[in-house]
Amino acid sequence: MANVDQALALIKRGTEEVLLEEELVKKLESGKKLRVKAGFDPTAPDLHLGHTVLINKLRHFQELGHEVVFLIGDFTAMIGDPTGKSATRPPLSPEQIEQNAATYKEQVFKILDPEKTTVRYNSEWMSELGAAGMIKLAAQHNVARMLERDDFKKRYKGGQSIAIHEFLYPLVQGYDSVALEADIELGGTDQKFNLLVGRELQKNYEQESQCVITLPLLEGLDGVKKMSKSLGNYVGITDAPGEMFQKVVSMPDSLIQRYFELLSFKSNEEVDGILKSIEDGANPRDIKIELAKELVARFHGEAAAASAHKGAGNVVKEGEIPDDCPEVTLELGDQSELPISFVLNTSGLASNSAQARDMLKGGRVKVEWQVVGSSLKLGKGTHLIQAGKKKIAKVTIS
Amino acid sequence: MANVDQALALIKRGTEEVLLEEELVKKLESGKKLRVKAGFDPTAPDLHLGHTVLINKLRHFQELGHEVVFLIGDFTAMIGDPTGKSATRPPLSPEQIEQNAATYKEQVFKILDPEKTTVRYNSEWMSELGAAGMIKLAAQHNVARMLERDDFKKRYKGGQSIAIHEFLYPLVQGYDSVALEADIELGGTDQKFNLLVGRELQKNYEQESQCVITLPLLEGLDGVKKMSKSLGNYVGITDAPGEMFQKVVSMPDSLIQRYFELLSFKSNEEVDGILKSIEDGANPRDIKIELAKELVARFHGEAAAASAHKGAGNVVKEGEIPDDCPEVTLELGDQSELPISFVLNTSGLASNSAQARDMLKGGRVKVEWQVVGSSLKLGKGTHLIQAGKKKIAKVTIS
Repeated sequence: MANVDQALALIKRGTEEVLLEEELVKKLESGKKLRVKAGFDPTAPDLHLGHTVLINKLRHFQELGHEVVFLIGDFTAMIGDPTGKSATRPPLSPEQIEQNAATYKEQVFKILDPEKTTVRYNSEWMSELGAAGMIKLAAQHNVARMLERDDFKKRYKGGQSIAIHEFLYPLVQGYDSVALEADIELGGTDQKFNLLVGRELQKNYEQESQCVITLPLLEGLDGVKKMSKSLGNYVGITDAPGEMFQKVVSMPDSLIQRYFELLSFKSNEEVDGILKSIEDGANPRDIKIELAKELVARFHGEAAAASAHKGAGNVVKEGEIPDDCPEVTLELGDQSELPISFVLNTSGLASNSAQARDMLKGGRVKVEWQVVGSSLKLGKGTHLIQAGKKKIAKVTIS
Repeated sequence: MANVDQALALIKRGTEEVLLEEELVKKLESGKKLRVKAGFDPTAPDLHLGHTVLINKLRHFQELGHEVVFLIGDFTAMIGDPTGKSATRPPLSPEQIEQNAATYKEQVFKILDPEKTTVRYNSEWMSELGAAGMIKLAAQHNVARMLERDDFKKRYKGGQSIAIHEFLYPLVQGYDSVALEADIELGGTDQKFNLLVGRELQKNYEQESQCVITLPLLEGLDGVKKMSKSLGNYVGITDAPGEMFQKVVSMPDSLIQRYFELLSFKSNEEVDGILKSIEDGANPRDIKIELAKELVARFHGEAAAASAHKGAGNVVKEGEIPDDCPEVTLELGDQSELPISFVLNTSGLASNSAQARDMLKGGRVKVEWQVVGSSLKLGKGTHLIQAGKKKIAKVTIS
């Protein structure tokens, strides 16, 4: 195990807050194998690099010899949104949860060491708690302090409804830390309040309080807004090697430091060296290529990383189908044909329907090398579709 | 079943509020046997006439042919006060609850017809609900509206803590109405908010909403403050016949109408006749004797009522042990003697320790006909103790 100063430097790298640092130092000094918890909603995972910031931090702890608990919040997922107001939180069946968890694991184990990761489900203890246990848990926090949470405060003052069960969820999350006897919990900055509830509940249960580490939201490829699928400024971890490579290499130079800190597995010293080399006149593009290769290797293997730059940025040449041309299958359902804009959007050739429309309007979409308009509909069969200069796919409609 | 107008007049007699009266009329008009719910905490019952106001109203419904559900809130009693702040709400064991429920039944069945009373325990459905069910229940109400409850509002504004589980108890009470499919719920005026939560939850569960009837707090014998054991202005339903008789006959005339309305089983017409007779010059004392006899008969039987006036107000004569001298047994525990003030208080010869001290100071306590002071301690054996002019008991210390 590394010495405490080194460990602390690695842990703190890129974080937003560490609460309380002196407690963390004590825990590290104890030499004990620490239990580091992070909770995940078992909704269908479709991770981009922004999501990996937290997972990378878990990996740091694994590198330091600690135990990572990947906690799947299946209990509340099975409840869904009981107010019925949210279409995005329908209750999930145990089968869906298990399936999502499997996909999750497949994705995160490209970062985490499965041997050093314990996967737990909070239904293990929440199902046993009973209504009486829930009431006792609720007795351990008070209304005024709950209303201090930023979003609650705003909604209460703004006259927007807060359903009472929303006060219970932070307590459930905190109780997870009690059940796990967590030493450390990680979460996004927006999770700070809930993470602190865990500290407090552990105290009530006469446990040593967990340290809380919050991680920032990663900026997207535009360098300004947070990375998000809906903003189109993201790198998906299942993006094809060439695409991933190209996206990272095209990012603004201003993101280099941030991305290395939060996404690279290079040591602090190596990262410092790289940043120094830029100051000394190295070409930022070379540095970005280095990061791009590291990320492609992580998610697609070393071989893909070695050849990724070859496919990256290549313009599809008329009449020449690239070797790695993706193949996509769409189902007709009860229709006989699918509109081209729908096909572009669904097959991933366009990021969203607005982009699909734009490309069609601009004459930048070709089917079998012929420019097509937005009124085209495609029937059963395999169609070679090109969108813009770089994207192409074989789309089979069945 | 009486006609709806008569029924409504009986139901409304002495009540504080009926919500909503037009719904109640509809329910009565339906001709259906209505389920009338009232909840009771299974704490050790020691009822006075103030408590019987609500039970008398339940009896009115029984007289009208409806079903009374005597609901024992054992679920929350088994939890106690989970904040641990209240010594008065320790969790009760199932055995204690059963024992208290038995004592309760013994007392209330002097008023209610056991044949027309269903005794239920809310643990029947609350134990099955689980933490998930509790969360779903909590989703059906919101924070802002809960904070509108008078006591919550005051505490929140006054910076006093409200534990989150306190928001769950009104929901549990409301859910009891759902589980029972109650048509009507009775409660004290302070219960109005919680009773209305039941109305709302039933709506969410697609049931017809219960009507809510609130009963006033009965004034004590001083005619001003609410009847309460600690204020000493009460008539206990286990008070000896003579004592009960005497207390009722000594009450101020201003209470006559109120007590007849809320405590007498006489019909509205009879009560009107009695009040009219006072206006016409009848002696209020005779009217009070009539009420006193009715109450003694209710709690001690007709024979006791017939002779109660004989013992009432009698001063204990020196050297003469009355026929109905109460016998009390106290346990020494691990002490060898008990202080006289403790004995007075525990045996019921004094209402509280302050009164015990006062009587001792004033030389108004005699043991074996001898005035004693506050330093006296009593050991094993039977002691004849007189407190004031009227109270006497044989106290056995074992």
